[in-house]
Amino acid sequence: MFTSLGDLKLIRKSISSYIHETPVLTSKVFDSTSGCSTYFKCENFQKMGAFKMRGAMNALLSLSSQQRADGVVTHSSGNFGQAVALAALNLDVKATIVMPSNAPKVKKDAVAGYGASIVECEPTNKARVAATSDISAETGAVILHPSDQKEVIDGNASAALELLESQPDIEAIITPVGGGLLAGTALAAKGLNSRIEIFAGEPSGVDDAYRSLQTGVIQPSLNPVTIADGLRTQLGENNFPIIKKYVVEIIRVEEDEIISAMKFIWERMKIVIEPSSAVAVAAVLKNAILFKNRKLGIIISGGNVDLSNLPF
Amino acid sequence: MFTSLGDLKLIRKSISSYIHETPVLTSKVFDSTSGCSTYFKCENFQKMGAFKMRGAMNALLSLSSQQRADGVVTHSSGNFGQAVALAALNLDVKATIVMPSNAPKVKKDAVAGYGASIVECEPTNKARVAATSDISAETGAVILHPSDQKEVIDGNASAALELLESQPDIEAIITPVGGGLLAGTALAAKGLNSRIEIFAGEPSGVDDAYRSLQTGVIQPSLNPVTIADGLRTQLGENNFPIIKKYVVEIIRVEEDEIISAMKFIWERMKIVIEPSSAVAVAAVLKNAILFKNRKLGIIISGGNVDLSNLPF
Repeated sequence: MFTSLGDLKLIRKSISSYIHETPVLTSKVFDSTSGCSTYFKCENFQKMGAFKMRGAMNALLSLSSQQRADGVVTHSSGNFGQAVALAALNLDVKATIVMPSNAPKVKKDAVAGYGASIVECEPTNKARVAATSDISAETGAVILHPSDQKEVIDGNASAALELLESQPDIEAIITPVGGGLLAGTALAAKGLNSRIEIFAGEPSGVDDAYRSLQTGVIQPSLNPVTIADGLRTQLGENNFPIIKKYVVEIIRVEEDEIISAMKFIWERMKIVIEPSSAVAVAAVLKNAILFKNRKLGIIISGGNVDLSNLPF
Repeated sequence: MFTSLGDLKLIRKSISSYIHETPVLTSKVFDSTSGCSTYFKCENFQKMGAFKMRGAMNALLSLSSQQRADGVVTHSSGNFGQAVALAALNLDVKATIVMPSNAPKVKKDAVAGYGASIVECEPTNKARVAATSDISAETGAVILHPSDQKEVIDGNASAALELLESQPDIEAIITPVGGGLLAGTALAAKGLNSRIEIFAGEPSGVDDAYRSLQTGVIQPSLNPVTIADGLRTQLGENNFPIIKKYVVEIIRVEEDEIISAMKFIWERMKIVIEPSSAVAVAAVLKNAILFKNRKLGIIISGGNVDLSNLPF
């Protein structure tokens, strides 16, 4: 991972022509409901609809010319697949995306639309990892891990950098945990201001990060069940030490709280956010006392939703 | 109506502390689909979620002190009701809103949330007008017409003023017709640049404005059936001469085209727009040839949608 703020700024510069500098929005009704002053970093407006574009772009730019010629392969519940597909398209690299058979159709269509090859597999971590390895062995393609790869974490960190450059006096930041956003955010935020407190929201149905923090060792995500499809993942070895070092608290939220928070943001802020993003919003609404009268940053991780299959 | 650009700027100034200057967004995917260069003036991010706040605020500010003391009453399928309720709350004026019994629940809740009184009536123009007159006769409240009142048209015109100040070289503007936005937009745009072409989108199921333009006289909206609930209205006498003078073409769109355009914007731009807004978007997609290679402004009229009752 990057070791200085200067390095992170260089990373952001190298990816800057391939990504959007997304807007930071506020909402009076959210503030009056939560009791804190909240700044939403809207990665739902990012290219391909999620922060993942940042990490994927940094990972692709970090490849050697030989590696670019060999192509890349990744497994993804959706957004990272889209991000790698688009990043690879930008650099004219061949990409193969292993996707769980239950991934939202809108995400599969988008991956195909960016010109990547899709290989479907069973919706388990084990099956995804196995299929990815097989493809790499056959084709020589470089494996990109959707959340636990250093270059991906580094690229993802640029969202928090932008947020804090625009709002330097933010006192706490919260993100969902599961997609490689939390660790990068923590590194960036602490690099900019050591007093910032880092929080995360996690679905109770996939609380491997919460249990890992409680026990001090990585706990398996055995049967991930949540509407937050971007978080049906396994906490990894690169992310965990950073999370253990910097994260004050992981707040678990229930499925109905995720759906309710998502609906609140759609209805009142008029923006489309995906369930994974709503996990962080729900965590704030559930534990508003933690953030009362503070200036809070929420990273809205993405906005890719299957509109034909909404929970409300 | 205002007769000079200077007057319109004064109106905008007087309402400015009560409204948002909404953002103007672009979308590469929309531009590549439509073949034109489009600037979306996002009144879905306006206070209470629609451009109607502009007209309502101007109407309330135009009342005499005696009229303010008497209160106001209006009939509205929803957004104008919310707008009057919030505008009245801002100025501490009593407001009564006559709403059709089939108005979306989210709109009724919002009106009540702003502290106005709601009186329900049958969902016909006749019933709405009658109920409004009765209340005015009983209480002395000033009747505000949701779309055909001069002060309302004037206030609504400020959206186009802002759009064209930010993008002065726009060549054509399109809005939905039915809610009092088109006439104000035409007046503002033509005041700024006489060469701008004005278009409108209208649901085929409520095509009174289209038929009125064709015949040269106001045609009745007898049985308005459309998902675009903000446009289930009757073209009025103040709006029609302006529309007749300035509007190049009213493009009629079918219900499936409205829904498809709405879904496109939600999915690809990640913003929540209501069906009435999607009418203008659908009109562009349906007649893209009219706008090919031109710089086009679309006024997104609002974003108030009942998420429990979506068409997809």
